[in-house]
Amino acid sequence: MLLPAFLPAIEPVTDLPLEARLRHKIDHKTKPVGALGLLEDLALQLGMIQRSETPSLQAPQMVVFAADHGIAAEGVSAYPQAVTVQMVANMLAGGAAINVFARQHGFTLHVVDAGVAAELPAHPQLLQRKIAPGTQNMCKSPAMTREQAHAALQAGMDIVQDLPGNVVAFGEMGIANTSSAALLLARLAGTPIEDATGRGTGLNDQQLMRKREVLTHASLRHQHAVEPLDILAAMGGFEIAMMLGAMLQAASQRRVVLVDGFIAGASALVAHALVPQVQDYLVFCHRSAERGHRLLLAHLKAKALLDLDLRLGEGTGALLAWPLVQSAARFLNEMASFESAGISGKSDKGD
Amino acid sequence: MLLPAFLPAIEPVTDLPLEARLRHKIDHKTKPVGALGLLEDLALQLGMIQRSETPSLQAPQMVVFAADHGIAAEGVSAYPQAVTVQMVANMLAGGAAINVFARQHGFTLHVVDAGVAAELPAHPQLLQRKIAPGTQNMCKSPAMTREQAHAALQAGMDIVQDLPGNVVAFGEMGIANTSSAALLLARLAGTPIEDATGRGTGLNDQQLMRKREVLTHASLRHQHAVEPLDILAAMGGFEIAMMLGAMLQAASQRRVVLVDGFIAGASALVAHALVPQVQDYLVFCHRSAERGHRLLLAHLKAKALLDLDLRLGEGTGALLAWPLVQSAARFLNEMASFESAGISGKSDKGD
Repeated sequence: MLLPAFLPAIEPVTDLPLEARLRHKIDHKTKPVGALGLLEDLALQLGMIQRSETPSLQAPQMVVFAADHGIAAEGVSAYPQAVTVQMVANMLAGGAAINVFARQHGFTLHVVDAGVAAELPAHPQLLQRKIAPGTQNMCKSPAMTREQAHAALQAGMDIVQDLPGNVVAFGEMGIANTSSAALLLARLAGTPIEDATGRGTGLNDQQLMRKREVLTHASLRHQHAVEPLDILAAMGGFEIAMMLGAMLQAASQRRVVLVDGFIAGASALVAHALVPQVQDYLVFCHRSAERGHRLLLAHLKAKALLDLDLRLGEGTGALLAWPLVQSAARFLNEMASFESAGISGKSDKGD
Repeated sequence: MLLPAFLPAIEPVTDLPLEARLRHKIDHKTKPVGALGLLEDLALQLGMIQRSETPSLQAPQMVVFAADHGIAAEGVSAYPQAVTVQMVANMLAGGAAINVFARQHGFTLHVVDAGVAAELPAHPQLLQRKIAPGTQNMCKSPAMTREQAHAALQAGMDIVQDLPGNVVAFGEMGIANTSSAALLLARLAGTPIEDATGRGTGLNDQQLMRKREVLTHASLRHQHAVEPLDILAAMGGFEIAMMLGAMLQAASQRRVVLVDGFIAGASALVAHALVPQVQDYLVFCHRSAERGHRLLLAHLKAKALLDLDLRLGEGTGALLAWPLVQSAARFLNEMASFESAGISGKSDKGD
């Protein structure tokens, strides 16, 4: 597969001498080797991303990509499509969960209209990047044209290009978007539709059965899409495509990327299919209650930081995990070493 | 069993009208019902503890209880006993992991000498409450006398009595204290010694086998201890006993109690055996990599907030989970409701 020329170049974080120095620093902190668990892996990742033994996290940014989905007409969501624009308005008014957690943790929040099926009044926190008022119903045609997919990727790249700081968190809002995520998972990871499809924001048993039928139909409709960008155009969403562009751009700038739940995971999955080394820059923040998300993370061999039965999206899981990312940087920078603190090693040292 | 008269009275948090109001408030936030997962349970718990629909967390306190263990002489730990006092010194110098996370999250940190086998110089953050310079080797005699257990409980109660704020986090330092925790778990929850015993801070296979033999021996030595305080005296530690008193006192004052890992869990287990309603006030902050800890939490039917493969102790898991506790209070206090934000309900509403 030839990578489209407009995609940014992403360096893998490989640097064996730096990695050895970071591991030595982590292992010689005043704690048993490995005792800080996943935070130790995270500290190593932060150091490798920033090419530094003293990583520093600056001006964290939260970007929520919002869009509507033609497939909502098939009754695959517990909520009506109008909720997308209503929740965007709620975010711009400061009342959504993502606002609460962004305030708590000092993130600058922007909401992107990637393709909401309504006109949104201008707002200082709203970025107008509407590709179209919702995707097409992918039971009947591709969700978007190849040109629209390209435009969405480019918009995501442009948005990140202009952001300050070295940490970006991505989330989303879009009624019916777990359907897109499930279809992308099924096609890119080979997961059966049945396993990839979950209750989203709260389907009952009958609705779940209906969703599975609809997605099976949509998947068959697009069975000839095999290249990642064709798959994205056929079964993706504007918020998923734009977030994907944003992830690639962020990685190309060696930013730390906080990945939220199932939908953001689907963007990461497509990004990984396009440019595998993007994953070096991704921090998977939580494992959601949505069925497919666990399979998606397993496919990427990714461990998530949190497992709190969240199924809200918006980026909430990314922000809830943020203090752990800070803790990883802090212990690396601030903890004493055995040598500096004059502490005895293991009894069996040298055995 | 008659509860010793010196233990503080603890009210259960039962208040059905308040619980109904809190559940209504949580369910009507702008998110699908249940979408914030464990944070919703936590928000309910905070409201119930504080008897308030708008809980507020004030002046959080971190208390680390340190003590030595006679059973360390049996070679049950990967580290020599001297590490206890060295790590206490490291904490007082600000270089331990717990210092880093306390600074990060604005906790006031005190270290308690509950029974370290060395004299510690005075320090503003050190509380001198030494019961004895380490417990007795419980392979040969009870770890402590009944009077010492009582004194340790009382000291823990007194320490908390004087603390400001309404949130306390408890952690510990004590070489060989996973041995005590495993024995308490085995006796109080009926867990086989084999399952309760883990690698602590890093035993190899042979050392783990030795630890199991030693603990089996100790457990048989004290097979006639059946009352919680007798079990505590026979196989506990001074830090475990003092933390137990601290937990009971904190609950009696309706404070939120952040419980760290396996050792703090053992204190909670004994506390629960003495006064079951104490658990209403406990927030189990993480599930450690230590084998017995998972069984202990399952016995208490407790869900932990984090699962990061931590096995450090000190209270680090409690502090790493703290931002989630704040997030729970914040979403309850700050998020808009569906009504206030003018957002549509589920499509099947009223069906």
